[in-house]
Amino acid sequence: MKKKPAVCLMSGGLDSCVTAAMAARRYELALLHLNYGQLTEARELRAFFDLADYFKVPKHRRLVVELDHLKKIGGSTLTDPGFRGPDNDLARVGVPPTYVPFRNANILALGVSWAEVIGAGKIFIGAMEEDSSGYPDCREEFFRAFNRVIETGTRPETRIVIETPIIHLSKAEVVKWGMENGAPLYLTWSCYTSNGPKACGVCESCALRLRGFRQAGYQDPVPYRTS
Amino acid sequence: MKKKPAVCLMSGGLDSCVTAAMAARRYELALLHLNYGQLTEARELRAFFDLADYFKVPKHRRLVVELDHLKKIGGSTLTDPGFRGPDNDLARVGVPPTYVPFRNANILALGVSWAEVIGAGKIFIGAMEEDSSGYPDCREEFFRAFNRVIETGTRPETRIVIETPIIHLSKAEVVKWGMENGAPLYLTWSCYTSNGPKACGVCESCALRLRGFRQAGYQDPVPYRTS
Repeated sequence: MKKKPAVCLMSGGLDSCVTAAMAARRYELALLHLNYGQLTEARELRAFFDLADYFKVPKHRRLVVELDHLKKIGGSTLTDPGFRGPDNDLARVGVPPTYVPFRNANILALGVSWAEVIGAGKIFIGAMEEDSSGYPDCREEFFRAFNRVIETGTRPETRIVIETPIIHLSKAEVVKWGMENGAPLYLTWSCYTSNGPKACGVCESCALRLRGFRQAGYQDPVPYRTS
Repeated sequence: MKKKPAVCLMSGGLDSCVTAAMAARRYELALLHLNYGQLTEARELRAFFDLADYFKVPKHRRLVVELDHLKKIGGSTLTDPGFRGPDNDLARVGVPPTYVPFRNANILALGVSWAEVIGAGKIFIGAMEEDSSGYPDCREEFFRAFNRVIETGTRPETRIVIETPIIHLSKAEVVKWGMENGAPLYLTWSCYTSNGPKACGVCESCALRLRGFRQAGYQDPVPYRTS
């Protein structure tokens, strides 16, 4: 039986790679990537295309959206060229300075528009609630509320639901799932500060990722400056 | 006392003009306009800037966002160059072909990102539920659901609420309020098919607008090809 399409948000990082690998078991992937003026835009985009190739996603099911307006309005160290340097304090409480205001709502809204047109009934997003950076728009509560917005804001016959398969996993569990199920983690890019060829190894995102690999007992296939 | 900023979505049409005039009584306007590949993009943009000038909105409080990706994904006669011609059947039941999939969620998400950065507590949108085109993302239920998304998806200290002051007005009541309160309706553009200097007078949007002026007992200050 032919699989149905599902939109999968694909930053090119570890979490979205594992989420796509999970989604690909039951759906035809339609991959959506957002350029929002993040400092590592070029490297993330390469990871996006590498992963799209790996998952054999046809050209018309790859959508890269430019939302550099999120850069213009600023409000995050991720999009501000005056980036204050690495921040790897994983014990910090509260919303970190890398939070891009309401980014996930922007990308989900785009995802729903696309899903409605191509007839996809699911939108996969690799958000994690507990073992993550503490972004408010990564919590299950947020996605539940967004599902209600989709219900009320699309055509009556449209049925689109956001799926968050890794929301309650730890980073180590995501790594473990990926390694044990052959997800192409070697193609992913998580670093917030380097455009390659090596990840910085010290930013918040590298720190979370490296801790996850360490706890899972695997070697990260991506090269780091610090190792 | 200095007024607080409020984001106001401004297409350049009648409804957003009246909404902005209402909002301007209590807030400093921050105007957000979306180019999403609509056929009348150029004329709408001119109306946006004319209205921004009229309301004396400073440059840094005018934001024009390019979301031509909504054009790429299509799904609406508003963004499809193969537009099938005017559609002024106001008695039609259901979602019309001019519905741009989930457009209002996209623009609201952008509005929230901006509001969070500039410290605005309100986002005004000139949506109308009853006397409108029947778009699902113009219903009060949708905005209520979106308010919950904002609550759950922004910083804990952020308080942003969507305001829909004309949601239950008829088009005639909007015209009446605008004319009686000196809103600059002569600067607005509602036509879906013409980039000026005259509005077509027959498309769905012109038909709704003309009926509103007729019912309100006022002459529309915008020129029409049909008159």
